[in-house]
Amino acid sequence: MVDIAKRVYDHRWKIDPVVRSLLDTDFYKLLMCQSVYRNHPDAEVTFSLINRSTDIRLAELIDEGELREQLDHIRTLRLTRGESTWLRGNTFYGKRQMFRPDFMEWFEGLQLPPYHLEIRDGQFELTFEGRWPEVMMWEIPALAVLMELRSRVVLERLGKFELQVLYARAMTKLWEKIERLRQLDHLKVADFGTRRRHSFLWQDWCVQAMMEGLGRAFIGTSNCLIAMRHDIEAIGTNAHELPMVTAALAETDEDLREAPYRVLADWHEEHDGNLRIILPDTYGTKGFLEHAPDWLAGWTGIRIDSGDPAEGTEAAIAWWKARGEDPTRKLVIFSDGLDVEKIEELHAQFAGRVKVSFGWGTLLTNDFRGLAAGDGLAPFSLVCKAVRANGRPTVKLSDNPLKAMGPPEEIARYKRVFGVGDQVARPVVV
Amino acid sequence: MVDIAKRVYDHRWKIDPVVRSLLDTDFYKLLMCQSVYRNHPDAEVTFSLINRSTDIRLAELIDEGELREQLDHIRTLRLTRGESTWLRGNTFYGKRQMFRPDFMEWFEGLQLPPYHLEIRDGQFELTFEGRWPEVMMWEIPALAVLMELRSRVVLERLGKFELQVLYARAMTKLWEKIERLRQLDHLKVADFGTRRRHSFLWQDWCVQAMMEGLGRAFIGTSNCLIAMRHDIEAIGTNAHELPMVTAALAETDEDLREAPYRVLADWHEEHDGNLRIILPDTYGTKGFLEHAPDWLAGWTGIRIDSGDPAEGTEAAIAWWKARGEDPTRKLVIFSDGLDVEKIEELHAQFAGRVKVSFGWGTLLTNDFRGLAAGDGLAPFSLVCKAVRANGRPTVKLSDNPLKAMGPPEEIARYKRVFGVGDQVARPVVV
Repeated sequence: MVDIAKRVYDHRWKIDPVVRSLLDTDFYKLLMCQSVYRNHPDAEVTFSLINRSTDIRLAELIDEGELREQLDHIRTLRLTRGESTWLRGNTFYGKRQMFRPDFMEWFEGLQLPPYHLEIRDGQFELTFEGRWPEVMMWEIPALAVLMELRSRVVLERLGKFELQVLYARAMTKLWEKIERLRQLDHLKVADFGTRRRHSFLWQDWCVQAMMEGLGRAFIGTSNCLIAMRHDIEAIGTNAHELPMVTAALAETDEDLREAPYRVLADWHEEHDGNLRIILPDTYGTKGFLEHAPDWLAGWTGIRIDSGDPAEGTEAAIAWWKARGEDPTRKLVIFSDGLDVEKIEELHAQFAGRVKVSFGWGTLLTNDFRGLAAGDGLAPFSLVCKAVRANGRPTVKLSDNPLKAMGPPEEIARYKRVFGVGDQVARPVVV
Repeated sequence: MVDIAKRVYDHRWKIDPVVRSLLDTDFYKLLMCQSVYRNHPDAEVTFSLINRSTDIRLAELIDEGELREQLDHIRTLRLTRGESTWLRGNTFYGKRQMFRPDFMEWFEGLQLPPYHLEIRDGQFELTFEGRWPEVMMWEIPALAVLMELRSRVVLERLGKFELQVLYARAMTKLWEKIERLRQLDHLKVADFGTRRRHSFLWQDWCVQAMMEGLGRAFIGTSNCLIAMRHDIEAIGTNAHELPMVTAALAETDEDLREAPYRVLADWHEEHDGNLRIILPDTYGTKGFLEHAPDWLAGWTGIRIDSGDPAEGTEAAIAWWKARGEDPTRKLVIFSDGLDVEKIEELHAQFAGRVKVSFGWGTLLTNDFRGLAAGDGLAPFSLVCKAVRANGRPTVKLSDNPLKAMGPPEEIARYKRVFGVGDQVARPVVV
């Protein structure tokens, strides 16, 4: 039977929206947003889209009008009553009322601010300016829209059964990964793949497949909407955005040097337990750990997001030992360019020495490499970052110079202030 | 939106029927049935299920009650008005009114006769006795029911996503075959996979995938219901059943020797063009062609269903030449144990020398080899054959002694009458 009412209702959609909910975003954005809303409500920031895969000329693939329609649709979204209820009533990381009433009230009224879109040299110049807590919420939906519109361009050319076989192949591929991961004892892995997913529906499938295929080894998803729909854990803590913007807000070099710790001091006040995760690489992991205050060594764990992950973990283990902490009680979350081989390798290397957890991103939710002719569906390296704060440029150094961001003279200043020496370049996978 | 009415309606199904239409059968059964209805309406025959894969103990896998429910459901089926309209109004092989009004009237009133079911030594003894035109219509649905119930037993153990991945793998596998077949110039291939299909829905998917993937190279399906639903050609001519039963009805050795030609003489009167296809192997291709009357050489083509297909084709080519016929104008239909490799090989060998066509069966609609643990979904060799006619056993020799059927003393008599010498055994694929 055809559901006539549904078909008629569907006629009304002028577009097929990529993002249909303000909760279709990463959980850490909400945690950070609450922190920003309390500590820097009026900071003026600019977020900007950056396509690190310059050979993919997005503006020649994606129609500008379609992109605008998708972005405009996101500006019509409001937190629904059910979504608000879930955020207010749910337990996150074992804690109730993670989100304070004043923040929730603000979030319920949130409309994403206007965007600026231009085309230059085959790329979209997409920027968002305004108050930090509002603008920051654009990051994930903007990325998801661009990733999915680019997928759609390729998918448009395929026949009905070619499409079905494409997804059959992608399902088979993911399931083979899951079957391999199932072999790892005491594995803990979460979906971190919202931002560079192939599409919403595909991410949703991946999460459900992980739920069935991995059982308790699958600990949750960074995507709030998907977590809500499937009643699983929303996963995430904090990101480079916090130290980057607060560093840019710093008035002096001394102030700058302290900024990354000041951010975590605020976080320390707000959160405990599994939310106390250090992200040490914004201005170089080595210097960050060396100069870190002792209370940071008491945090639950660390997230390794750039550089050689084994080296980073060894550095953290050495640091914990030097500060009198027991590394076997510490959590190490790997989240940089993971795929099954890397997960197996790191698990073999560190399980038992530390508590290991994996935030599996792009190659979980967008591994369409080799599945379409011309490899037009292979994932690429798109980010959306805070590039300015109160008129000053932001800087990220990371443990991989290819992931560094900011004007060259500012990068030089930051390297001096944070005592970062030579770094080893590593190819950016995705 | 959930279609509530549909859900409620679905509650009423006591079972999920494997066969939901009397047209869910092979087209050649209808052609043969019409012929039998005219020439032998009162012959008493027995059809019997024969599982040549004795290691698969069907009665230990499939619940007898479920099998009975499925068979009982088939006995509730009647030709619907729309189905009758399609048979009466459609063009088959370019001809209108293929089915005569008296036959259609009889078919519209047809209920399949009772079945007899016992369990012996881990196998089902399933037999159908009665008038030939009625009983013969059990063959395809009985096979389809047993094949699909056996699939279901294995599928029952799988999780939701395991199931989806299973079909994803099967789709990928078939599509890779289709992509290979697409490389063959002037290919003509039809679906002959009803009887040993994995399931109805899967056969339906396979046919649609072939339609999209092969375009005009896909010439149709043997399945009437699927042909009707997708408005494609129903394909098929005649089968061993006709010479086997008429041979069993023969009173003398002389009569027996003539039986296979007498059947085709009837067919010659009823049909022309592409329906005049010789199936020569029932009692040995070699003797059949040697002793064939000249008018048979004028037929459109031949179907190669056992023995070495290249040898069989060479024998047919030599025969045509000897009878003054031009082999390049003759059609050779291969239908025995085909898969892509064999199709490629035979196509390379014979395209141009004769008109080549393929009736692709079990490894089109049931290639689940290697897709389930323990290979529990691999196809197996199940047939449902006429074993007795008017009290006398039927015999089939075929060009492969492993496909021979009948009591040993009768096989010996037939071999003598038809002058069949030594035969080379070839493994029965499916």
